[in-house]
Amino acid sequence: MIVLFTDFGLDGPYTGQVQAVLQQQSPGVPVINLFADLPSYDVQAAAALLPAYAAGFPPATVFLCVVDPGVGGARPGVVVKADDRWYVGPNEGLFAWLARRSDSVTCWQLPEPDGVSASFHGRDVFAPVVARLARGGGVTGEPVTAECLAQADWPDELFRVVYIDRFGNAVTGVRATSIPQQASLKVDGQVVRMANTFSDVSPGETFWYANANGLVEFAVNRGRADAVLGLKIGTDFSLQNEGI
Amino acid sequence: MIVLFTDFGLDGPYTGQVQAVLQQQSPGVPVINLFADLPSYDVQAAAALLPAYAAGFPPATVFLCVVDPGVGGARPGVVVKADDRWYVGPNEGLFAWLARRSDSVTCWQLPEPDGVSASFHGRDVFAPVVARLARGGGVTGEPVTAECLAQADWPDELFRVVYIDRFGNAVTGVRATSIPQQASLKVDGQVVRMANTFSDVSPGETFWYANANGLVEFAVNRGRADAVLGLKIGTDFSLQNEGI
Amino acid sequence: MIVLFTDFGLDGPYTGQVQAVLQQQSPGVPVINLFADLPSYDVQAAAALLPAYAAGFPPATVFLCVVDPGVGGARPGVVVKADDRWYVGPNEGLFAWLARRSDSVTCWQLPEPDGVSASFHGRDVFAPVVARLARGGGVTGEPVTAECLAQADWPDELFRVVYIDRFGNAVTGVRATSIPQQASLKVDGQVVRMANTFSDVSPGETFWYANANGLVEFAVNRGRADAVLGLKIGTDFSLQNEGI
Repeated sequence: MIVLFTDFGLDGPYTGQVQAVLQQQSPGVPVINLFADLPSYDVQAAAALLPAYAAGFPPATVFLCVVDPGVGGARPGVVVKADDRWYVGPNEGLFAWLARRSDSVTCWQLPEPDGVSASFHGRDVFAPVVARLARGGGVTGEPVTAECLAQADWPDELFRVVYIDRFGNAVTGVRATSIPQQASLKVDGQVVRMANTFSDVSPGETFWYANANGLVEFAVNRGRADAVLGLKIGTDFSLQNEGI
Repeated sequence: MIVLFTDFGLDGPYTGQVQAVLQQQSPGVPVINLFADLPSYDVQAAAALLPAYAAGFPPATVFLCVVDPGVGGARPGVVVKADDRWYVGPNEGLFAWLARRSDSVTCWQLPEPDGVSASFHGRDVFAPVVARLARGGGVTGEPVTAECLAQADWPDELFRVVYIDRFGNAVTGVRATSIPQQASLKVDGQVVRMANTFSDVSPGETFWYANANGLVEFAVNRGRADAVLGLKIGTDFSLQNEGI
Repeated sequence: MIVLFTDFGLDGPYTGQVQAVLQQQSPGVPVINLFADLPSYDVQAAAALLPAYAAGFPPATVFLCVVDPGVGGARPGVVVKADDRWYVGPNEGLFAWLARRSDSVTCWQLPEPDGVSASFHGRDVFAPVVARLARGGGVTGEPVTAECLAQADWPDELFRVVYIDRFGNAVTGVRATSIPQQASLKVDGQVVRMANTFSDVSPGETFWYANANGLVEFAVNRGRADAVLGLKIGTDFSLQNEGI
């Protein structure tokens, strides 16, 4: 299975063009769009989502991961094998938390692209590597150590909003298991208590909960947490007693 | 064939995660996204659309139907077999009109979910049932009568806007065959006459017509009916002589 | 391979309904969504994009092309075979530049549709023709000359914005090879210089470049060209010395 984890959008041609390459170079391999709307240019947000949302996929799944503010620049592409799943994309931090949270990590650096578009490495550089891995071909890059993965210095949990879904729920970069189970959170001066799920609070009430992928998420029963709490991608928060 | 009929959105991970479950549990069965943007929390709107848009699908199609304001709450899931197609989802009214308009209806109640996420039953509860049906497995629930389906008291036709498409056309919950063929409609004090299709009226002119799935739809030739007529999801309307 | 090139949107039922027809009538043929959000009613914009974005697809690919402001009207559907790829859609100008830029062009006119919806020819008329071609069936229409294709009088290059992507980049209808390589462009009184790609200019700086499909595109490194330059679909521009 191939999984797309990008900021390419479903509108416009980009995701379709990547799928066309995959279809031609690894025909018959199913392609799942996991995220096509990762926050543009925000590598850290995508990096915080990746291990949480990749965890459910079977061994040998190949992820095409692209949030690439530096497209056309000098950063090299990498292939990461982590806990029997494959990841391909630019080495700008996207794999920082994935590597740290995996039991086994192996890395390869892709050769400098040559004779391809300067602006669409997802289609021209990374998709062919993904297709090759998906059809059981080997890695063509040069082995490097996991220390080569960018942004190894990021903190263990990311106390900010990294994604807002169509219901207005705000996903964060904090694993729910990393904070006290009944902790209250503080965001922009407001205190938000924990609940198990939507139906456990009254309509219109705010809460946080461990979402279906284990991340702390701000929500409102039958309402929009982004509007009620004034949340945007990038909004910081803290445990109630640690202040912001 | 599996058909998704949800409010999960194509943005974000939800539809992709459901597709990943289906891909693993019923590999090779094609999955069609019919609606991923049903109005959030508006079960009645989705219920009005379902029989009109399901009608064109072949026997044995399995529909995953989720608009679920009560997620995490006590409402049980159901499997509905109606006129040789299968439907799986929460029993909150989504199947009210479908059942009423089908010649044969059989129902099963799904067991209480156990050991799954509290917030994403589409992925964790309903998708596995859909996959099992799609690969020809039996129903695992308990047979119940069609009277168990929620909201059997809803009126036969729903005189309100239930969906607005990207062109600004406003789909309603009224079957075009249920009203006089040349009837004019009244919405927010404005009278809207019937036309056969877009090119039958002048550019900028409003009209209603029987859309390609048999529902009454407000439209404007080369314009946006939602903007011109001030329509939103939920806007009521009536036959001209019955007043609102 | 079947490619969808439409203004149907991914939201709402239209693309899904077309895919359901294709799945039933040409099972197993992969379907790629290239564009589902072409500018509504703007046939000329779509026509300028088509040859640039179709060029990468393999021989025998079948394109379903629909931007159809005249739906329900008298315009006939056509099948175009151009350089070994197939194109099916309404004859309102969509194939004007494609035909002009192809080495070999053959055309057929589709029979008047009968017994189908008045408003959704994409699903009811064109999709069945596409499916038949994709499964290797013949063309059912009547051979006509390429001179029958509408809008043969459009200029060779279209100096206006034809698409704005989710990053705010503005694609135009001008092939980069048709203008001097280092030319500056003038749009709304502003002069925009050429660069090779995003990382070649400073963050926030505007430039134009030959995009990954060979078209002139306005962009801003880590910013939105539409906002910075005030661009919309339809905005005209010129070479710096030719004035607007």
